[in-house]
Amino acid sequence: MSIHGGDIAQYIKKYGYKKNDIIDFSANINPLGPPMELKECILKQMEDIHRYPDIEYTTLKNSISGYLKVFTKGVGIEQIIPGNGATELIYLYFMYNKFAKVLIPSPAFSDYYGAVNNSGSEIVYMRLREENDFIYDAEEIIDSLKKDNKIECLVLCNPHNPTSALAGMDTLVRLLEYTCNNGISLFIDETFIELTVEGNSSSTVKLIQEYNNLFILRAFTKILSIPGLRLGYGISNPSNITGMLKQKMPWSINCMAEGISAFLGMRLIEEYLNKTQKWLSEEINYLHNELIQMKWLKAYRPNTNFILLKIQSDRLKASDVKENLIKYSKILIRDASNFKYLDESYFRVAIKGREENKMLIKAMGECVL
Amino acid sequence: MSIHGGDIAQYIKKYGYKKNDIIDFSANINPLGPPMELKECILKQMEDIHRYPDIEYTTLKNSISGYLKVFTKGVGIEQIIPGNGATELIYLYFMYNKFAKVLIPSPAFSDYYGAVNNSGSEIVYMRLREENDFIYDAEEIIDSLKKDNKIECLVLCNPHNPTSALAGMDTLVRLLEYTCNNGISLFIDETFIELTVEGNSSSTVKLIQEYNNLFILRAFTKILSIPGLRLGYGISNPSNITGMLKQKMPWSINCMAEGISAFLGMRLIEEYLNKTQKWLSEEINYLHNELIQMKWLKAYRPNTNFILLKIQSDRLKASDVKENLIKYSKILIRDASNFKYLDESYFRVAIKGREENKMLIKAMGECVL
Repeated sequence: MSIHGGDIAQYIKKYGYKKNDIIDFSANINPLGPPMELKECILKQMEDIHRYPDIEYTTLKNSISGYLKVFTKGVGIEQIIPGNGATELIYLYFMYNKFAKVLIPSPAFSDYYGAVNNSGSEIVYMRLREENDFIYDAEEIIDSLKKDNKIECLVLCNPHNPTSALAGMDTLVRLLEYTCNNGISLFIDETFIELTVEGNSSSTVKLIQEYNNLFILRAFTKILSIPGLRLGYGISNPSNITGMLKQKMPWSINCMAEGISAFLGMRLIEEYLNKTQKWLSEEINYLHNELIQMKWLKAYRPNTNFILLKIQSDRLKASDVKENLIKYSKILIRDASNFKYLDESYFRVAIKGREENKMLIKAMGECVL
Repeated sequence: MSIHGGDIAQYIKKYGYKKNDIIDFSANINPLGPPMELKECILKQMEDIHRYPDIEYTTLKNSISGYLKVFTKGVGIEQIIPGNGATELIYLYFMYNKFAKVLIPSPAFSDYYGAVNNSGSEIVYMRLREENDFIYDAEEIIDSLKKDNKIECLVLCNPHNPTSALAGMDTLVRLLEYTCNNGISLFIDETFIELTVEGNSSSTVKLIQEYNNLFILRAFTKILSIPGLRLGYGISNPSNITGMLKQKMPWSINCMAEGISAFLGMRLIEEYLNKTQKWLSEEINYLHNELIQMKWLKAYRPNTNFILLKIQSDRLKASDVKENLIKYSKILIRDASNFKYLDESYFRVAIKGREENKMLIKAMGECVL
């Protein structure tokens, strides 16, 4: 296990805060909160806690397939694997495939490294260029793939955590073409894709029938604001999914999370996505504009609901900013120094509602006075 | 994934039943149902679905430690690992340890085999003797261990699934002594231990400080009647637990299951265990006595809330009995023919409340007319 955002428990203990005191900018969750109708669907699942979940999760897979049909030509349930959060599927994917080597353009989400290590595969690190704002460059990635013919898998994250960069469809298609033609698997983490202004139109799900080497990781965690419930899903070709299902532990998704099926069946998610994109298109610019005015910071251009920041001063470290903010303003941010190739000058903040964003700006202004 | 009990979804589909129509004797869950106070604690967790669970699960581990203190000299939280059901811990234990060979006295619960296979270790099968009612014989097991010095782990299940046999403490201590002295790990699944008339007094948890090679698997699933929620835990020496935690995926226990902490804190579980044991001590004898009167069956002596049965006729198979019962009586039983070393003549039934047990007896009487 590695360090992640959203870990408010230690600050509750350290400062004697109550959990509702803390404004959590460290976890990147939709601030609109779970839709009321979703909460009702989850509550209804209390009736089923004395039963095992459906070991096949057929209803759940059908409702996910129904959701995907809105923005694709359709994805069959034999192409879908549900998981205990996206996390279970990251670990299962690498454990099942047992690649010789896996290329991870970095910085990147820490669980990719953990999962590849657990599987016994070797990680090949590729440094994303800071001067290019860590944005994926297809030709650079292909060069790295060419350098080592033991690389059997490429890991992408789009939009990217922690940089909030969004790769263009041309970049993704170029990488899909190259990897597919060269027998390399492509794992793409789209768990933040609905939390972009462009939404599902930036997703590679519409390409799933064309590229046999593609595995797409998605989740309801962030978009529906339910990280406590744990529900992710993977999309790939039927043979990959069947193989993974055979190695998957049974009943890993709890019955409360199965309540998302009924919510998806109500066809309310599109409306909620629209509301989310409206909020995001306003706040992404507001918060970014405020942050680029702070001379002690570089604010990377965000494409999803968080912003990567770099301190432009040798005297200040991300851990100091974090400690100041939690101590004096009860605001929790994500010290990003433990991301591969980042250092003590980096931290990450979520984008929340206007009122909270204002509080963050105010507190950050004060913390360097 | 392999075949398990509790899979009512396929019969809902096949016969157009509603889920509440089916009387499920295939999953071995406490028929008293989840305590009302527990349900309230779980409901309260709805407040936390927009947050990640505590990645360390400190509150949860503390409350499990508090529960264990009632019948032991105490187990520290550094000796406890919580899991997404007991299942996650079965898979994690073998993946972490990567034993050369693992001895599984069989028949046994199918996920042991799945987890050992996933970990790359080799399974050594040992046939429990039918003429001995599949009861563990310490000397026989030790003979099997002596035959192959590559065996690094012994897997026990107590009470045993699917036979419902309970090993005596002398047998367990003999096996603990032998394995400990010979550098062999002992994995013991006690997920049904509270569902015995003797309850926690039959548990090996009180021996955990004496045997460094012991890993005990436990769960709230069966005893608290919450298989939908997914919460198990493992107990071992601190170094084993620390190692497993390092390989464990984050946030695998959902926030609703964390509600069990508050329930354990209310100190109501002892009362519930007493109620459970009162029910069990009556029904275990009632159902067993009824079943041994059926001449077409051998009913093995139960020690927990299920009974293994063997059909004493060549003309009838477990799958026929199962099909008859679900079709004509909406009763679901567990065809046990896919357990290693069992055959088409074996099936398993849960022990439920008197009214349901009577319905089972009646339906079983009719199905061979």
